[in-house]
Amino acid sequence: MGPDGIRLSSLETLVSELKELPGIGEKTATRLAYFLLRRSEGACENLAASIVEARRRIRTCPQCSNFTEDTICAICADPRRSDDIVCVVEEPSDVAAFEKSRQFSGKYHVLHGALSPLDGLDESKLRIAPLVEKVSGGIVKEIVLATNPTVEGDTTALYIARLLKYNEVKISRIAHGIPVGGEIEYQDGATLGKALQNRVPLS
Amino acid sequence: MGPDGIRLSSLETLVSELKELPGIGEKTATRLAYFLLRRSEGACENLAASIVEARRRIRTCPQCSNFTEDTICAICADPRRSDDIVCVVEEPSDVAAFEKSRQFSGKYHVLHGALSPLDGLDESKLRIAPLVEKVSGGIVKEIVLATNPTVEGDTTALYIARLLKYNEVKISRIAHGIPVGGEIEYQDGATLGKALQNRVPLS
Repeated sequence: MGPDGIRLSSLETLVSELKELPGIGEKTATRLAYFLLRRSEGACENLAASIVEARRRIRTCPQCSNFTEDTICAICADPRRSDDIVCVVEEPSDVAAFEKSRQFSGKYHVLHGALSPLDGLDESKLRIAPLVEKVSGGIVKEIVLATNPTVEGDTTALYIARLLKYNEVKISRIAHGIPVGGEIEYQDGATLGKALQNRVPLS
Repeated sequence: MGPDGIRLSSLETLVSELKELPGIGEKTATRLAYFLLRRSEGACENLAASIVEARRRIRTCPQCSNFTEDTICAICADPRRSDDIVCVVEEPSDVAAFEKSRQFSGKYHVLHGALSPLDGLDESKLRIAPLVEKVSGGIVKEIVLATNPTVEGDTTALYIARLLKYNEVKISRIAHGIPVGGEIEYQDGATLGKALQNRVPLS
């Protein structure tokens, strides 16, 4: 029996499962559940199958730790992409964002998170060791640390920079500043500070 | 191949399935998909199973059209609830809301929508005919029209009131006014108008 006196255990199970998704609370979960009950059985089965299928088929690339369905991901397998430069990001979604920009033709390395000891995310949980190994191979000439401009992302970038400092590899951090199209009036102090610090000479 | 050059057809399928849920666009769908890929296979299978299970097991009650797993829903089957008064609502979630209030001890009738000819929702799509049949049985003494205070909900209420006017049944519309705890300053004109029109004498 639910709190409203209606016994609907499979609905309650569905709502509690949906509530585990990020950003989805009781109300949204209930709304989604009612929406699903109104759809055809086939449509519900397709959604369910796509969840199980994706989770089963997608694994991490042994070279860059990005998500892939193949043995090696399409970017690592692409001979036109340079092995000289590796862009280190926190999440697979960050790779997708960089790829959309079409501004990078090197390889990536996905950490699957950022250092956050309070959340139990120490270096053993991140894919830092394979990055160190990759760099020690001697092929990589530059590492661009493109972790997020947050405390965790900055800490992770510093941590990796220190780990790699005795290797013959150039280490850079992605630039922080005013986003293109962003008005100065609406930028926060930290962004404006970074934009001033990292000012670029006009040639 | 996706737009970002990564072939991940099962991820793309998952994102496009998630995008069909209400209020979930490309960005949220992608975020949810990445979240799911990070979970255990078991957790993904549980979510998938709960969707299929709920859709398979839940049907509509033949008496009130509310969702139920039983032959007849718990409210219709409850002998303590009065058959004299029927509260007509648009959605099963409205029944849940009324039940939470614990202020109603009659039965419900769920229309599964409101009249909206532009969206193709005419009376044939709603559970109006079973309501008319129920009323013609002569047991019901009052119908409370509790459709939403929207153009569609009001139209549906009027439509049903006209359909039933030759039956020996009292027809009422749920009161509209200032919500309890709502400040007058922040109410819209339509609500204040209703609150004035429907003012109640203080005895």
